[in-house]
Amino acid sequence: MKAQNARGTRDFSPEEVKKRNFIIQTIQKHFERYGFLPIETPAIENLSTLTGKYGEEGDQLLFKILNSRLHESKNKDVLKQEFEKMLEKPYNSELITERALRYDLTVPFARYVSQYRHTITFPFKRYQIQPVWRADRPQKGRYREFVQCDADVVGTNSLLMEIELVSLINDVFEELFPKETIVLKLNNRKILQGIAEWMKVSDHFYSFVGIIDRLDKIDYSEFEKFLKNELNNINAQNIDAFIEIIINYKIREKKANTTREYIQNWFEFMQDCYKNLLSGYIHPEQQDEMLILLDGIDIEDLSIILQPDISLARGLNYYTGMIFEAKVLQSKFGAEVISSSILGGGRYDNLTGIFDFPGVSGVGISFGIDRIYDVMEALHLFDDKKLNIYPAEILLVYLSNEDEKYCLSMAKRLRKQGIRVDIYHQVDKLKKVMEYADKKKYPYVGIVGEEERINGLVSLKNMQTKQQEKISFENLVQQLNAIK
Amino acid sequence: MKAQNARGTRDFSPEEVKKRNFIIQTIQKHFERYGFLPIETPAIENLSTLTGKYGEEGDQLLFKILNSRLHESKNKDVLKQEFEKMLEKPYNSELITERALRYDLTVPFARYVSQYRHTITFPFKRYQIQPVWRADRPQKGRYREFVQCDADVVGTNSLLMEIELVSLINDVFEELFPKETIVLKLNNRKILQGIAEWMKVSDHFYSFVGIIDRLDKIDYSEFEKFLKNELNNINAQNIDAFIEIIINYKIREKKANTTREYIQNWFEFMQDCYKNLLSGYIHPEQQDEMLILLDGIDIEDLSIILQPDISLARGLNYYTGMIFEAKVLQSKFGAEVISSSILGGGRYDNLTGIFDFPGVSGVGISFGIDRIYDVMEALHLFDDKKLNIYPAEILLVYLSNEDEKYCLSMAKRLRKQGIRVDIYHQVDKLKKVMEYADKKKYPYVGIVGEEERINGLVSLKNMQTKQQEKISFENLVQQLNAIK
Repeated sequence: MKAQNARGTRDFSPEEVKKRNFIIQTIQKHFERYGFLPIETPAIENLSTLTGKYGEEGDQLLFKILNSRLHESKNKDVLKQEFEKMLEKPYNSELITERALRYDLTVPFARYVSQYRHTITFPFKRYQIQPVWRADRPQKGRYREFVQCDADVVGTNSLLMEIELVSLINDVFEELFPKETIVLKLNNRKILQGIAEWMKVSDHFYSFVGIIDRLDKIDYSEFEKFLKNELNNINAQNIDAFIEIIINYKIREKKANTTREYIQNWFEFMQDCYKNLLSGYIHPEQQDEMLILLDGIDIEDLSIILQPDISLARGLNYYTGMIFEAKVLQSKFGAEVISSSILGGGRYDNLTGIFDFPGVSGVGISFGIDRIYDVMEALHLFDDKKLNIYPAEILLVYLSNEDEKYCLSMAKRLRKQGIRVDIYHQVDKLKKVMEYADKKKYPYVGIVGEEERINGLVSLKNMQTKQQEKISFENLVQQLNAIK
Repeated sequence: MKAQNARGTRDFSPEEVKKRNFIIQTIQKHFERYGFLPIETPAIENLSTLTGKYGEEGDQLLFKILNSRLHESKNKDVLKQEFEKMLEKPYNSELITERALRYDLTVPFARYVSQYRHTITFPFKRYQIQPVWRADRPQKGRYREFVQCDADVVGTNSLLMEIELVSLINDVFEELFPKETIVLKLNNRKILQGIAEWMKVSDHFYSFVGIIDRLDKIDYSEFEKFLKNELNNINAQNIDAFIEIIINYKIREKKANTTREYIQNWFEFMQDCYKNLLSGYIHPEQQDEMLILLDGIDIEDLSIILQPDISLARGLNYYTGMIFEAKVLQSKFGAEVISSSILGGGRYDNLTGIFDFPGVSGVGISFGIDRIYDVMEALHLFDDKKLNIYPAEILLVYLSNEDEKYCLSMAKRLRKQGIRVDIYHQVDKLKKVMEYADKKKYPYVGIVGEEERINGLVSLKNMQTKQQEKISFENLVQQLNAIK
């Protein structure tokens, strides 16, 4: 049988695992420094927990698990009928499938918070780093199994949480990317709601959000057409005014480069809105959210670029306040890398409502480590030396069976010092051993023969310089610790 | 809708995650010190990769994934027929299900080694720590989703690998359990094969192995009955001789306590075998494997107890040489804990043969972290202090909105020092804040008001002693670093 992983899934080699873990551990370290605690939820959830939470398309993308031992069922006729319904239209039958793989970490977290509400002290800050599954058509940069790194605070609507999250995002990207190569876009759903109300498209808010989200990809005639043709009760005058405001906003945006310039552009946009009597729709407190957030952040000290951006909308329906999205500034590298977002997030007011636990406000972010990995790899940002990609600091070799015990005891003593040690598996020609050591990239080979054994020494060969010297154990520990 | 995790699955609270991670990281640290490299394979495998590898019962326990978008299929009549076959007997149809969740890490590893054979330099030492899924009936200590921690070497039949694995197992358990509370049983499948041959039950070797495995749970008449009634061509004289040998072996075993005594018992068993002319069936080199292994280990230096045990058989069919199994010695604790094994492993000669890559010998071990967790929890072996179960070293509180910025900048500076810092989410009554801090077990609360802000200080409250003092930032860093 041919050995082949399933389509849309990936195997990770030791080098890839080490690089991925470097990203994950960096994110995890900062999650912990900001007071987030880890939880884990199972990969398998009841199908009823997941369906209806991600829209119609999301339901189609759930990996559903076939119930076990169907042949033992007593209701075979009912099962047949249920299966026939599945063949006609999207349909879930608990008799055929009652479980599915989680689609994200947000809904399982909402389920967790609701289920354990009586033992949790709110506000509750949790992080969660686990794989999720989507039955998407596999394509470049999109996988059927991928890891999400989420941090959320639930149980408070304090904007301090948004301020802290922006600071946390900055700290993570400061460690992974060069200065000012990541832009974090910010917007507020409430302001979009105000604009929608002003334009009388509130009844179609999610379509409106959808078209706003694609503003950079479409032209304005398409935007105008969408608004005028597809929505009812449209206020044509306001549409024209809004399109003009947006065009001017985008012209200024093209010239902006720094956080200060992007913030300035945002203020000018707001002024344009007020001139057009939009102020009645955007409540001061809603606008204030962005102001409070920007005021709470020490802009001079940021490694990332902040961009308040009215055209950021985010696809997910559950966001109700501030929204976030981070991207790599390709132009800073002069390289072609993925343009999709490497982080998303936002405030939601009622995520646990579906689990009979209403009125709990939360805000969270999610790092896309697969995309971060792809970008870092494309831009050669991994420090192979720091990642210790080789199997061990030293490969020990013994020249005859008499030397094996001495070799084993040396390995034991080195490992007690925290040094990674491999032992060549048998007595072999040294030339062959050295070829093996070169292939596996051990920095050092330690040779143990009769002379070394009797004198308590080891012949240490530096695989880069090819130099070899007989040294004591203490000296060996010192040299190996230096490269650890 | 009621918030409820799926049956047989578990959510892990922050405290549980931290304890589990302590176990996982301990094992991982030692895997790396022994030169094992990490790989990861996807949770989802092609169903054909998994079926037929775990026996008939194992096939039943696979979680199969329903193919997506059945309603879009053009072969609905064929699908109906396939589904009806599923209702009659265990049957996999690729049209209905072509993927499943992995059942263990061994088969995916064999698939990985076969798939990437041309880029791997052998011997290849890999470790893998990932969840696996089994549609088992949920019961105490048995879960539908659990984590396996595996280390394997493939591409050499050198017994040095077994010696190293025993040493690795010792190092892990030395760190997790008190001295001499874990017993590692050893046996060799080849010796069992010799005995089976001698007794003329080779044709039924796996049944024989199965009954050997249950020797401690059944009585000898049952053993005798099984051998005489269920197997053909039985050599009755040899059965009687073997039962006598086994009875004597078990009597001596009951008196043994130390590694030396268990080894002595093994040698006496071997002598009894030779007296009964079994020597023709147990080849010297086979017996030698155990001798070489025992000779390679520095017994005086072990924290675990080694027990060569002829009645250890291990359920899995693919083992062909040395086999391992570790258990907790309950009597050492005077407590009732689970008696099932916390580690298993062994040598297999042809695991990758099923993937058209024959003749690759391997040996591996698998730690059962869920059981290790349960035992450590029952025996109170976790050191809560070392695990830093609280959300952060300090909870900062600001007394008025004017103090927020000072508080934020203090948090930033502390975090830069690697200290975990939380900020109370709003201005609130101090009494309420302290109750919150007590509930969440922060060791320190840092209060920031006008006076502290103006003088660049913080009022630090030790939540255990309830003492409070105004101190400088440098002093604060020092105190918090001390408890990290």
